[in-house]
Amino acid sequence: MKSVGVAILGLGVVGGGTYKILRDHREYFQRTQGVDITVESVLEINKEKALALGIEEGKISDNIAEVISNPNVDIVVEVIGGVEPAKSFVLAALHSGKTVVTSNKELFCKYWHELEKAAKRTNAGLYFEASCVSGVPIIRTLIDGMQANVIENLTGIINGTTNYILTRMSREGSGYEEVLKEAQRLGYAEADPAADVEGYDAAYKLSILSSLAFHTKVPLDKVYREGITDIRPQDIAYGQELGYVLKLLAIGKNGQNGIEVRVHPAFIRKEHPLAAVSDSFNAVFLKGDSVGDIMLYGRGAGALPTGSAIVSDVIYAATHNDIKYTTFKNSAQAEAGVKFVNDFRSRYYIRFTAKDKAGALAKVAGVLAKYGISIVDLIQKGEDCEDIPVILITHETNEYAVRRALDKVAALDDVVSVDSVIRVEV
Amino acid sequence: MKSVGVAILGLGVVGGGTYKILRDHREYFQRTQGVDITVESVLEINKEKALALGIEEGKISDNIAEVISNPNVDIVVEVIGGVEPAKSFVLAALHSGKTVVTSNKELFCKYWHELEKAAKRTNAGLYFEASCVSGVPIIRTLIDGMQANVIENLTGIINGTTNYILTRMSREGSGYEEVLKEAQRLGYAEADPAADVEGYDAAYKLSILSSLAFHTKVPLDKVYREGITDIRPQDIAYGQELGYVLKLLAIGKNGQNGIEVRVHPAFIRKEHPLAAVSDSFNAVFLKGDSVGDIMLYGRGAGALPTGSAIVSDVIYAATHNDIKYTTFKNSAQAEAGVKFVNDFRSRYYIRFTAKDKAGALAKVAGVLAKYGISIVDLIQKGEDCEDIPVILITHETNEYAVRRALDKVAALDDVVSVDSVIRVEV
Repeated sequence: MKSVGVAILGLGVVGGGTYKILRDHREYFQRTQGVDITVESVLEINKEKALALGIEEGKISDNIAEVISNPNVDIVVEVIGGVEPAKSFVLAALHSGKTVVTSNKELFCKYWHELEKAAKRTNAGLYFEASCVSGVPIIRTLIDGMQANVIENLTGIINGTTNYILTRMSREGSGYEEVLKEAQRLGYAEADPAADVEGYDAAYKLSILSSLAFHTKVPLDKVYREGITDIRPQDIAYGQELGYVLKLLAIGKNGQNGIEVRVHPAFIRKEHPLAAVSDSFNAVFLKGDSVGDIMLYGRGAGALPTGSAIVSDVIYAATHNDIKYTTFKNSAQAEAGVKFVNDFRSRYYIRFTAKDKAGALAKVAGVLAKYGISIVDLIQKGEDCEDIPVILITHETNEYAVRRALDKVAALDDVVSVDSVIRVEV
Repeated sequence: MKSVGVAILGLGVVGGGTYKILRDHREYFQRTQGVDITVESVLEINKEKALALGIEEGKISDNIAEVISNPNVDIVVEVIGGVEPAKSFVLAALHSGKTVVTSNKELFCKYWHELEKAAKRTNAGLYFEASCVSGVPIIRTLIDGMQANVIENLTGIINGTTNYILTRMSREGSGYEEVLKEAQRLGYAEADPAADVEGYDAAYKLSILSSLAFHTKVPLDKVYREGITDIRPQDIAYGQELGYVLKLLAIGKNGQNGIEVRVHPAFIRKEHPLAAVSDSFNAVFLKGDSVGDIMLYGRGAGALPTGSAIVSDVIYAATHNDIKYTTFKNSAQAEAGVKFVNDFRSRYYIRFTAKDKAGALAKVAGVLAKYGISIVDLIQKGEDCEDIPVILITHETNEYAVRRALDKVAALDDVVSVDSVIRVEV
């Protein structure tokens, strides 16, 4: 039976989960995969943590050179996260011909080309299923399951923290700050939640997923990004009245005008399969020209779900000799000729406060009409007195037209303030 | 660039879809997959059909030996369906070292071992993604995405025809026969619908999927099977009152007592992700010990979705040199030591007609209690007169206990008839 030695760089949540899966399933993998996988080395400064997991002292190291040069190590699992020192460690492993399996979305989305160039040079494998949507095999699906398709649309709920927060806000009518605190207490949000709630994490993943889906590098700086920190419970409630659920969506579209990639809160119809993706669950919805609509659903984070993706890659690397690289001419940029759309099209939910309803509505509608924006739905709250909220939903229109129109709306005498603008998708 | 020649056996719905995808995406596959795939031969008696698709006359044949011996053919796509002549054709292709891609669930589930033995002998590839759930990459996921997991549960809606019929019956309150006729008129059901509505099609797929999930051959004759032909609209309506949706489920469980595989109608909670899988859509829900719950959703049939799965396999075969066979000691039977459970556990929806309600209920409850079955929910319809329907839902209990208890219930003086028994899952 083939023997494969693994090194794990970092025994955090994901590293610990990966170790446990490999330790507890060794015989299962021998039987079902025909390969004997052992953890030969771990890089971890906190020796006690490693010992507590039952790792032999001789296999614990705080020296990356020692770990990589270990002749028993064939595959290096990087689960440190962030750019440095992860990047140097991964490059060092690849330079010495070791296959790398990583869960590091930030590193991968920013330096994919550099990592792959290094991998190709030594014919090392480079696997990254765990970087996106945890144990849900979305990368494998894009690479090995959807090849027959020109993918037109990829829409996902790909950040667990924000989905947990929005689900609770929707259920309880609570405010963002309150739910965030509760999420932090329960471990669903980090002490510094910015990477999740500002949409960075989702943007990293969207850059990776849309690059694979559209077969061209989609650089991070092309991803429009907006987080959930400004979401107010009354908007969620008004949306519900109109039949919508609020989600932080990651949207990639590949159409005639070019590629459109964006992360932002959006209302979706409550009947759409993505609307039922609640709490910390994630899902990715794909539209291919042959397969039509498909959706993959599962946990987007956690020690064992992410460990599942890493070990899946380790087994794949251990049982396949072919290495299929996936990047796009090893460039940090999109290929020449690929266009990106910024003035994307959407429908819009707009809430504003009117001084005098009758007068304000007519004037607002007039301004919108000037920019080619027509109204499809309307809720008016309260009596016909001063300072009342008005909610409207537009037909599909252009982003820039909405922004320009709302500048004018805000300046109207009868309008106290434009309070919320939320895109309405699917 | 690598060139790969394909032969398509049978230009029916799926064969036609496969041809169109290969024809229309040739340049796309050259660019994105680095391989030039051409259709070099088709086996089709109806020459006009082939010509109408734009296939050159010289590539159309009605002679299988000629197709297989064509030196330009590397991969043979079998989309004839059924056991013979498909089996002989596939074996002939494998014997001559050609890789086979098939959508044939019946052939594959019955003769997997034989086909694989032949493939191994000549080192030919054998791919079958299209045999289950069409373009949804469930086979690829089980083989290359879920390896890290001991899979405990696989529950799917894996037949589009029955899901379409049950969805319409649920929405409209119509009877089975009426909706079946409409489904036949619209092309969602075959003129002879038995393979779908009696659950054979789902049983074939469940045999394949659970074999992969549980890493042992799960022979077709181990799959308990019950179709939807006896489903009555009033049971769907009563279930809805209790918060359930009726689906034809394919269930595979791998537990301490052994493997349990069954296809039958079942009520599921309306909040469960599978409950939202409507019309001809399919989905498979998996529970792995590491990844937790994941679900794959998409179209379960159709020319292009199934063609997507076939072309995906063709590309995989064309771009990988490694062939990873998946069977289980090339046997038609499960490995020694694998146990199958027939007396499975479930909750039950039971509808019976009572002569005198008060008396009947007490006696029925008494009989059930004797078999260790307790009641969790109850609906009584109509006034306290003669011949009124009573619906009850049990706690989890054993199948055989329910069958024995209901024989006794049917014999009670106060009971006119036991009308419906439907399992309640998830």
